[in-house]
Amino acid sequence: MAKPGIPKGTRDFSPAEVAKRQYIISAIKHHFELFGFQPIETPSFENSDTLMGKYGEEGDRLIFKILNSGDYLNKANEALLQDKDSLKLTPQISEKALRYDLTVPFARYVVQHQNEIDFPFKRYQIQPVWRADRPQKGRFREFYQCDADVVGSTSLWQEVEFVQLYDAVFTSLGLKGATIKINNRKVLSGIAEVIGAKDKLIDFTVALDKLDKIGEEGVKTEMLAKGISEDALQKVQPLFNFTGTIDEKLNKLQTLLASSEEGLKGVEELRFICDNTAVAGLGHSMLDLDVTLARGLNYYTGAIFEVTAPRGVAMGSIGGGGRYDDLTGIFGLKNMSGVGISFGLDRIYLVLGELGLFPETVTEGTKVLFINFGEKEARYALQAIQVLRRQGIRAELYPDAAKIGKQFQYADKRGIPFTVVVGDEEIQAESFTLKNMATGTQETVTKTALAEKLR
Amino acid sequence: MAKPGIPKGTRDFSPAEVAKRQYIISAIKHHFELFGFQPIETPSFENSDTLMGKYGEEGDRLIFKILNSGDYLNKANEALLQDKDSLKLTPQISEKALRYDLTVPFARYVVQHQNEIDFPFKRYQIQPVWRADRPQKGRFREFYQCDADVVGSTSLWQEVEFVQLYDAVFTSLGLKGATIKINNRKVLSGIAEVIGAKDKLIDFTVALDKLDKIGEEGVKTEMLAKGISEDALQKVQPLFNFTGTIDEKLNKLQTLLASSEEGLKGVEELRFICDNTAVAGLGHSMLDLDVTLARGLNYYTGAIFEVTAPRGVAMGSIGGGGRYDDLTGIFGLKNMSGVGISFGLDRIYLVLGELGLFPETVTEGTKVLFINFGEKEARYALQAIQVLRRQGIRAELYPDAAKIGKQFQYADKRGIPFTVVVGDEEIQAESFTLKNMATGTQETVTKTALAEKLR
Repeated sequence: MAKPGIPKGTRDFSPAEVAKRQYIISAIKHHFELFGFQPIETPSFENSDTLMGKYGEEGDRLIFKILNSGDYLNKANEALLQDKDSLKLTPQISEKALRYDLTVPFARYVVQHQNEIDFPFKRYQIQPVWRADRPQKGRFREFYQCDADVVGSTSLWQEVEFVQLYDAVFTSLGLKGATIKINNRKVLSGIAEVIGAKDKLIDFTVALDKLDKIGEEGVKTEMLAKGISEDALQKVQPLFNFTGTIDEKLNKLQTLLASSEEGLKGVEELRFICDNTAVAGLGHSMLDLDVTLARGLNYYTGAIFEVTAPRGVAMGSIGGGGRYDDLTGIFGLKNMSGVGISFGLDRIYLVLGELGLFPETVTEGTKVLFINFGEKEARYALQAIQVLRRQGIRAELYPDAAKIGKQFQYADKRGIPFTVVVGDEEIQAESFTLKNMATGTQETVTKTALAEKLR
Repeated sequence: MAKPGIPKGTRDFSPAEVAKRQYIISAIKHHFELFGFQPIETPSFENSDTLMGKYGEEGDRLIFKILNSGDYLNKANEALLQDKDSLKLTPQISEKALRYDLTVPFARYVVQHQNEIDFPFKRYQIQPVWRADRPQKGRFREFYQCDADVVGSTSLWQEVEFVQLYDAVFTSLGLKGATIKINNRKVLSGIAEVIGAKDKLIDFTVALDKLDKIGEEGVKTEMLAKGISEDALQKVQPLFNFTGTIDEKLNKLQTLLASSEEGLKGVEELRFICDNTAVAGLGHSMLDLDVTLARGLNYYTGAIFEVTAPRGVAMGSIGGGGRYDDLTGIFGLKNMSGVGISFGLDRIYLVLGELGLFPETVTEGTKVLFINFGEKEARYALQAIQVLRRQGIRAELYPDAAKIGKQFQYADKRGIPFTVVVGDEEIQAESFTLKNMATGTQETVTKTALAEKLR
């Protein structure tokens, strides 16, 4: 029989991996709650109607569909079957689909439960999502999203708080030098106005993003090739030397976008967020203004966030988010502005691993293994184990009276730092022989002393 | 536009529900770890091969299948399409399926990772499973299982520990009077031997289970109708008056099963588990021997566990488990005995709710809401909020400078116990006016005093 496997793009997590993932999730959850976010959970699968058409054509294709139960072909259209028309047959044999992200289910939740919710509603959600993407390094078909969103307020204080929230989480994880990049959709619209070509905005930002790599001339050549005019390039010349403090950058934008009302609104919003972030201050992270930041261009309407790992760690984005003025409109509830951020669990995991930032205690498991010499000794041991556990000490009895060497080896392999040996002598004296597995030293102690030593 | 909904048999969980579910999960997780179990996680979907055929024909039908991506009909057999043969077409258009329980994925995990695992392997797993069951009260299509299993040891100390583990969790949840019922597959085999009809064993236990309801004569009438002989009934007469202490019950079984080697082995195992449980003692739970307990008859080979809610709560089983001598044989790894238990999260949730056992603190969220009077005041507030959060106090700023009444009402609805008001006066004096929302009392305090009051 061949060894069984798992579907490509999915993963098993070992005890050490679960512990390290939980460490990150706990930090995120802790700060979500400190900032006043409340947890919700939604079902793993939604009605297909809820998801289809919300992520574009590519998204529709990447959504995992669940086959109807029972005789699902019974009502299927015969012509479609004969034509083997997979695309058109799908809605006839599948009514449910695995969630693709947490944002659309959240929008659905808000609309469905609008009468039970007190707005503004600050919710967080940490659950897996599924995408039928081609699996590759760092990209999986099942992965966790960790999202916090506020819906029902247009206040820019939320954006200020989200910058602080990112920083608080990364600081608590000991991650130094993450950059929280911020931009604003309205600034991008302003740039599009200034270059006189809204449809060229993506080409423009993509090219501009290469400034570090190919230099000003390279970028300009690419832009011209994409049909952006010489005249336009001259108007946005300051973007080719877009350095300095956030304040300096904002001043440059203010001048550059003087003719665009929307662009100036964007600058004003950015200034509010950056100024107030400066007042409160950040811990281990930095804030930066990046006008090339355009993720989900058609989705966000205000602030756009993206967090990059510290320099020297080639990891790309470890988080992102932004404001979308009409979160719930797709489900019929208009005028609900939402703003939110997401933490990339898998990438943060890799970054902490690469930088050696997981505390050793994270993967610590059982503290003490009682060696098993037989029924009488095991019974004596189990009573002591019970006492230890009541004091919060993780303790185990080796289940079988196996050879002592094998039992010690097991403790060693499992990384259990202490073992306890009890024989006739110990039972009579109501004592325990405690061995430190790292140093090899042994001492015989009372039950009370045992708990104290292990605490 | 109609309000969006979710698939039948699935659920949205509100913040209060998530908090209460997490309270139970945390208690279970905490004790799993105290007892030396290590967490693993497996993918939500497995290759269909891994799951199909492992749960019987009914199980196969209840497994949710995932439609292949892309042009899934391309390679499908035309004759099957024409015949609309759903059953036979399924494996051609679906290669993956949502997990149905945690036991089969665990067996797959053990076989796949056998070279990385130190046996005996004590693992726990708390993840959702999916079943295309007909939804009904208390039965869902997506629900969590909370499992702990040991694989790689036949030691009966594990069974002793599982009884303690059940008790430790229920005791920590404040649940008094749960009954941990125990039986043994070998005792059931012994009874089958004695009644001279192995194939009648299920009929026998089902009928015997009705003793409380329909009395001895009723039960006997049913058994005779099922083809169990008068002679057989006489041989097992003690089972119709199967009361008394566990010891008394074991003695009755010993006599009854004197002619069955396997039956006596079962009695001996039960005696070991019950005697050693008595030595260590239990907290809020009770242990009882129930010879009618037969769950998953063809699955378990030794101990069988089931936990029932305290009397007066009509809830049925809130947990179950047992030993299966050949856990991993289905994946080609022979002679791996496993024993495990499961906690029924949804039912425990209902029981704790019915008995009012959720501590009030479980659903406590934000501790203090800062009222927003405008930009200057909000900036001052946010700095104080940052200080509070660093001390672990959940604090929020109302995002908009809305009418003060609306803001207080929001705090009230959210159950936030304190609000803080800051105006010009407070800013000048570097103070804060703290309001206790329950009593309505207000006091003006310094920043240091604020944190102390809220801690």
